[in-house]
Amino acid sequence: MVLVRHEMGEVLRNVRLRKGATLRQVAGRASVALGYLSEIERGQKEASSEILASVAEALETPLSQIYHEVGDRLVVHEGLEQREQRLAGVIPDTVPDDILNSPREPIAAH
Amino acid sequence: MVLVRHEMGEVLRNVRLRKGATLRQVAGRASVALGYLSEIERGQKEASSEILASVAEALETPLSQIYHEVGDRLVVHEGLEQREQRLAGVIPDTVPDDILNSPREPIAAH
Repeated sequence: MVLVRHEMGEVLRNVRLRKGATLRQVAGRASVALGYLSEIERGQKEASSEILASVAEALETPLSQIYHEVGDRLVVHEGLEQREQRLAGVIPDTVPDDILNSPREPIAAH
Repeated sequence: MVLVRHEMGEVLRNVRLRKGATLRQVAGRASVALGYLSEIERGQKEASSEILASVAEALETPLSQIYHEVGDRLVVHEGLEQREQRLAGVIPDTVPDDILNSPREPIAAH
């Protein structure tokens, strides 16, 4: 299961790095403890709506953009999960007995 | 300040109503207390990543779609906020003195 706080953390970190800002700078501007912001970026803590609003403002990035980026990352994960489920249904993990026990076809001379 | 939990609550409620499901049904499927889900929908409680994943699954709706819908709602709010700020800068609240004290132009006869 994909946890959205991991994706949110990645997005906040990516936005910060794109802005060339340090954790310390963003934490200071957002009035959030540095260790707490670091835990949010690593997906270890859920950010409240108030903290998210402060961090987005400190990053000079609309919260809508952050939410859309999280949505985009989730699309990728959901696509991969679906693909895995599809492959698991279509391609068997083991070679079926009827294929394993079938006599080898002679290779046709050309 | 727009709090994202209000938008998230509205989106979850809208998705549920579009699916024609009751609070009780979704709470049951998601293994979340009915009162808690109701508070999330009303934007009174933050939903953890685990709760969000369960509710999205109970709603048979990808979490990516929910995040994109929240992003779309935030765009509207941000647009309205910007518009208010713009209007506040451009259109003064009071009639400026030079306009108030200027002699009335005679109305041209036609």
